[in-house]
Amino acid sequence: VTITTLTTDFGALDWFVGAMKGAILGVDPRTCLVDITHEIPPGDVRAGAFALAASYASFPKGTVHVAVVDPGVGSSRSALAVKTAKYFFVGPDNGVLSMALARERVEAVHRLVNEDYFRHPVSYTFHGRDIFAPVAAHLGRGVSIRKLGPAQKGFVRLPWPRSRGSASGVEGEVLYVDRFGNAITNIEHTKLISGVDAEVEFGRNRVCPVCEYFQKVGHGKPVAVPGSSGFIEIAVNGGSAAKEFGLRPGIPVSLRKKKGRAAIPVAD
Amino acid sequence: VTITTLTTDFGALDWFVGAMKGAILGVDPRTCLVDITHEIPPGDVRAGAFALAASYASFPKGTVHVAVVDPGVGSSRSALAVKTAKYFFVGPDNGVLSMALARERVEAVHRLVNEDYFRHPVSYTFHGRDIFAPVAAHLGRGVSIRKLGPAQKGFVRLPWPRSRGSASGVEGEVLYVDRFGNAITNIEHTKLISGVDAEVEFGRNRVCPVCEYFQKVGHGKPVAVPGSSGFIEIAVNGGSAAKEFGLRPGIPVSLRKKKGRAAIPVAD
Amino acid sequence: VTITTLTTDFGALDWFVGAMKGAILGVDPRTCLVDITHEIPPGDVRAGAFALAASYASFPKGTVHVAVVDPGVGSSRSALAVKTAKYFFVGPDNGVLSMALARERVEAVHRLVNEDYFRHPVSYTFHGRDIFAPVAAHLGRGVSIRKLGPAQKGFVRLPWPRSRGSASGVEGEVLYVDRFGNAITNIEHTKLISGVDAEVEFGRNRVCPVCEYFQKVGHGKPVAVPGSSGFIEIAVNGGSAAKEFGLRPGIPVSLRKKKGRAAIPVAD
Repeated sequence: VTITTLTTDFGALDWFVGAMKGAILGVDPRTCLVDITHEIPPGDVRAGAFALAASYASFPKGTVHVAVVDPGVGSSRSALAVKTAKYFFVGPDNGVLSMALARERVEAVHRLVNEDYFRHPVSYTFHGRDIFAPVAAHLGRGVSIRKLGPAQKGFVRLPWPRSRGSASGVEGEVLYVDRFGNAITNIEHTKLISGVDAEVEFGRNRVCPVCEYFQKVGHGKPVAVPGSSGFIEIAVNGGSAAKEFGLRPGIPVSLRKKKGRAAIPVAD
Repeated sequence: VTITTLTTDFGALDWFVGAMKGAILGVDPRTCLVDITHEIPPGDVRAGAFALAASYASFPKGTVHVAVVDPGVGSSRSALAVKTAKYFFVGPDNGVLSMALARERVEAVHRLVNEDYFRHPVSYTFHGRDIFAPVAAHLGRGVSIRKLGPAQKGFVRLPWPRSRGSASGVEGEVLYVDRFGNAITNIEHTKLISGVDAEVEFGRNRVCPVCEYFQKVGHGKPVAVPGSSGFIEIAVNGGSAAKEFGLRPGIPVSLRKKKGRAAIPVAD
Repeated sequence: VTITTLTTDFGALDWFVGAMKGAILGVDPRTCLVDITHEIPPGDVRAGAFALAASYASFPKGTVHVAVVDPGVGSSRSALAVKTAKYFFVGPDNGVLSMALARERVEAVHRLVNEDYFRHPVSYTFHGRDIFAPVAAHLGRGVSIRKLGPAQKGFVRLPWPRSRGSASGVEGEVLYVDRFGNAITNIEHTKLISGVDAEVEFGRNRVCPVCEYFQKVGHGKPVAVPGSSGFIEIAVNGGSAAKEFGLRPGIPVSLRKKKGRAAIPVAD
């Protein structure tokens, strides 16, 4: 059984995801299909890259990850298959794969030009169904990535806003707001030092403690937690930090030792 | 093949459900994964319990049902696996499993403490991925529930507002409003007597007949039907009873024999 | 492995789709289940028919397609299984299957009356779970369609608003607006002549060129493309044609040769 994941901006209202799955199953009816999400905002390559980066590593070795957030479909942007030490990735070369690939050992990058592995006729606007889906299925059944097209060195990379050390601690920003209204920052929780009480400042001088879970603070109170994606998240116990504090991507966040002590909570 | 169902409040916008599925497939790549719903309102344990109770029995014997509506994640609430005569259930011990379990013969309840069956490192805030998913997958592949942790006697039960007989019939209330605007009550349709015309009163002296299907009344008219979950539902033919009459959980509903005749339509 | 697709108006909020899948897996636990969409507007048979027609042909031979948009559930409308040269279709006889069937070679149409293939007890309001799901699963495991009930000749067909030739080109209308705000028309792109520049007029004298992909026009500009369903679609590069121009089903659209030249772009 090959596991194939799908991350797209196709939404649930229309039939696009279903049609893509049909194209995969037409090549290999034994594929195990898993949706990551199809609710990436239309054309939001960064959000797609983030969702893929946050989830792909939960899957077992050999999984084929397909990401189609592709506002340039049909234009000159190229289409890629990438082999890493553990996975395959398939998608447009617009950065949507890049946040995940930044964490993997890349072994080969090939442009998808061999039409033998496409579904025909290839539409102008739905390469998800006609190119990415069948190519992913062929990779899943064991076709060599070299057959798909010529190798290339690099791929389009999205800039990732990295956190940075400062005199008082670590400076970062909000990267993503999830459905619970939790604001995921770009501060890795490897920046926390075991045994050192830390706090986070965000927005207009708001401060909250860093705790292990939401209910360490009172109901309705803000709290920063080491989140499940490897980053510190700002939450409200029993509420939405996004609503309560207007948190959204780009808003600055600082991590520091509690109560202004001098030592900074940087782990490594 | 093991079938594993998922009921969560994780929503479709983010990657949480996908990450959970990856964790399951990492333990057993042959699992057949079925979504019940992921649109439980965030933290609404009662709604999650209701969705699970309304659907779990459609699945064949041996199915593993996982429910993660878990506002207390990371705190002291415990995590459970439950074996019944037909199924396994996995979730936090906060009542989300309790409405389904109330209808099953419970054979064993174990707390999830054996970290051998967890995904590592265990995050503080995403036990769906790191505890419930892998434990469910291990149960599905045949690991004994006794290996997961110590047995316990009981589990947290949500109070279920039961209907009750009265002089004129049966008194109950609305439990749940579905996407069609149908209001599911807590009056079992075993309360209906075959051959006896019944009617339902709801809200401010509104009355509608109990019929077998929506189109027995005129377009736009209210009707009560024996619903698919085993309870009487109030609907509007071609419309939304919730919108038309402001129906929502807690609103009182009475079932009685039509036209005020004395006999009451209680079956048993 | 049998592939079974599901197209319904059940939505993602409740447990209805999950319960249907449980009923299918109860008959055949090895079924590969694929969601087309469950977000058909409640009772909108035409939208369901369109989604099925746009996606079913992506699936391999032998796939069982189930469509349940069924406002008349429980009433006298009949339930059907249809065998075509490549597929099975299962659903109510209200037209929801008819747009797909119009493109297939129909070999047999049978009414679902043999209760041996139903789930019991059969509810009055959820034939998706109790009739369509188990019947689809039985077909998938190889039960002959003749066992399901008596053959019938025809089935309810939805009128399909066909495009028609005119002095200046082809006259059609918008059929469907998708999640990207693209307006799918009923003008087949077989009406385009290779090498002839064409344009589309829509709404209040708006005109846009027909191009192969969105980015052939400037950001924010309208463009008509040969869409992935076989029809010309009106889009806005980087935006929503529906929002920008108020496009919705029924709005007239004309295809013509660019710049008012006499020859018309009708291919056959």
